[in-house]
Amino acid sequence: PDASAGVAVMRFNNPPVNTLSLEFLTELVISLEKLENDKSFRGLIITSDRPGVFSAGLDLREMCGRSPAHYAEYWKAVQELWLRLYQSSLVLVAAINGACPAGGCLMALTSDHRILADNPKYSIGLNETLLGIVAPFWFKDTLVNTIGHRAAERALQLGLLFPPAQALQVGIVDQVVPEERVQSVALSAIAQWMAIPDHARQLTKAMMRKATASRLITHRDEDVQNFVSFISRDSIQKSLQLYLERLKQKKG
Amino acid sequence: PDASAGVAVMRFNNPPVNTLSLEFLTELVISLEKLENDKSFRGLIITSDRPGVFSAGLDLREMCGRSPAHYAEYWKAVQELWLRLYQSSLVLVAAINGACPAGGCLMALTSDHRILADNPKYSIGLNETLLGIVAPFWFKDTLVNTIGHRAAERALQLGLLFPPAQALQVGIVDQVVPEERVQSVALSAIAQWMAIPDHARQLTKAMMRKATASRLITHRDEDVQNFVSFISRDSIQKSLQLYLERLKQKKG
Amino acid sequence: PDASAGVAVMRFNNPPVNTLSLEFLTELVISLEKLENDKSFRGLIITSDRPGVFSAGLDLREMCGRSPAHYAEYWKAVQELWLRLYQSSLVLVAAINGACPAGGCLMALTSDHRILADNPKYSIGLNETLLGIVAPFWFKDTLVNTIGHRAAERALQLGLLFPPAQALQVGIVDQVVPEERVQSVALSAIAQWMAIPDHARQLTKAMMRKATASRLITHRDEDVQNFVSFISRDSIQKSLQLYLERLKQKKG
Repeated sequence: PDASAGVAVMRFNNPPVNTLSLEFLTELVISLEKLENDKSFRGLIITSDRPGVFSAGLDLREMCGRSPAHYAEYWKAVQELWLRLYQSSLVLVAAINGACPAGGCLMALTSDHRILADNPKYSIGLNETLLGIVAPFWFKDTLVNTIGHRAAERALQLGLLFPPAQALQVGIVDQVVPEERVQSVALSAIAQWMAIPDHARQLTKAMMRKATASRLITHRDEDVQNFVSFISRDSIQKSLQLYLERLKQKKG
Repeated sequence: PDASAGVAVMRFNNPPVNTLSLEFLTELVISLEKLENDKSFRGLIITSDRPGVFSAGLDLREMCGRSPAHYAEYWKAVQELWLRLYQSSLVLVAAINGACPAGGCLMALTSDHRILADNPKYSIGLNETLLGIVAPFWFKDTLVNTIGHRAAERALQLGLLFPPAQALQVGIVDQVVPEERVQSVALSAIAQWMAIPDHARQLTKAMMRKATASRLITHRDEDVQNFVSFISRDSIQKSLQLYLERLKQKKG
Repeated sequence: PDASAGVAVMRFNNPPVNTLSLEFLTELVISLEKLENDKSFRGLIITSDRPGVFSAGLDLREMCGRSPAHYAEYWKAVQELWLRLYQSSLVLVAAINGACPAGGCLMALTSDHRILADNPKYSIGLNETLLGIVAPFWFKDTLVNTIGHRAAERALQLGLLFPPAQALQVGIVDQVVPEERVQSVALSAIAQWMAIPDHARQLTKAMMRKATASRLITHRDEDVQNFVSFISRDSIQKSLQLYLERLKQKKG
């Protein structure tokens, strides 16, 4: 983490594409907890150290051919990451310097400000339906809060990945800038947010996000059970397996 | 109904202007029920077979000079149509090839995608206040979900009917196309939605719409009672009668 | 109050900058109550008689160096003004002919239609965080209803004051017009709203605003207690005192 003026920078580096494996999720949560407790930091920029991808999202290998207990453990870790990020008392800025689908998009959506590199290959969205799976209600709530009910309904059903110009227009990101300027613009943006008195800003942020976060906190166990029973279905397992095999062939 | 690639087309044909009489509502609900249960259909286009009008909306003759029992029966049928359409597991596309006020607009708002013919005479909106009546809360909820709270507050109070360009801008429709292309664009649009795995799309749609549908389901009887007591008022009956007489004179 | 065609005009005149002192709040509430009960008025334009400022908002002197009982009395009066304005059965139009921060913006947000004079000095927004304080949940709800969740989250955290062009773009006002035309445009706008049958318009307005108003009504005492305990904190009192002293020096 950098420390220029109280700003930490978290550079995702889980080769090849920053997939959110259980191990990587756990690391992220621990790092976030440390930063929250370290009074020398008031802001955090999340970005990628892997070329061309911010994060490929959830790790299908954690959701395929494993035990129900493993699925439950994995899902709790995903919930935990979202709760930490969405309720962070730090100013959170996403410097999105690569493709940003599914779980990658979810992380970006928890930020206070989102900057996307202007590269047609870098699209952003919750594309779960394309894989035959369903974004849970708290992914949905986070998206509705960001782009509104109608745009979210359309984006979630169609599994839309928005390229930069469309992403800006629908409001899923706040700025689109040339790729080489993403980091410097992120620093300027976070400076604007850090100019606000911390206490007032944090209370305001908590007020805005409380209802949405509480909904998951209240239904956490139920949400784990839903995930485990959904992902354990034969039809879902088959379609995930097919998808993983196709991915392997692409690389091979 | 057509069957090209799993798409049914429902062409409203209740002369002269597709008014939602009790009989027509009942027919629509039965047709929808059949389509939902027919596995050969995955998508439905609703459009009009009457020139110049999609649907004139609720039938004032069912709401004027009849018994409370009739008003209750009529209102239950309106509720039933909305619940069927809004919660349909089919992909629903509205090919709006004519004027689309009040109850016509309500049907369009239940769709997954709305295409309006680019004709200045074809406006769309919930214009109930202009007749001295009030859209019920579930009409309001459907509109808020589509265009947001502020735009809905303004549109509902002023009884706004949006001509094509304004309709597109406020987001009450998704596309405005030349009149002769409405049907072909509807087919292209529905193909995009039908490319998504059904099960994931249906669960996502249900998740997006559940809270809104549940609100009516929970308060269904109360909503019928409200309607019956409101519509039975002398002042409302008088103003509906006046309106109906003016309509007759226009035609005569 | 003017009476041309049932329109009252309330011109704020509490020198120098229409600060919402306890006395001024009480006067406003009494005037509103009278207007609501006077059947000769169906619409109300709120505007300023002070040059360059619509209203500077809440009176920090009522919130600084006083007793808890005074803070409670003051806050109840702020709640009362908002409840009266937000639930008014009159058509309410804001002719914003000057700067419109914080509590001034709150009053404007309760209107059915907002017109801002096109002067770069006249910005509008809820800038509480800049003073180290937090807008209460009902200020927040009113803003979210007007500009949506994401824009409100950003505006409230950053304490944004929108100059005219930005105010129009984000939707916090409905029209921006040359300064000399604010009053005449307000009269035209209110005429459009008053053309709608009163009863239907009022029921529709109540339906749109009920949930938001009820939230404060239900938590009114709790909200007073929160305000009193927050504003009584040493750190808040110190920062308000500093701010007031700086204001005095500016003038001196």
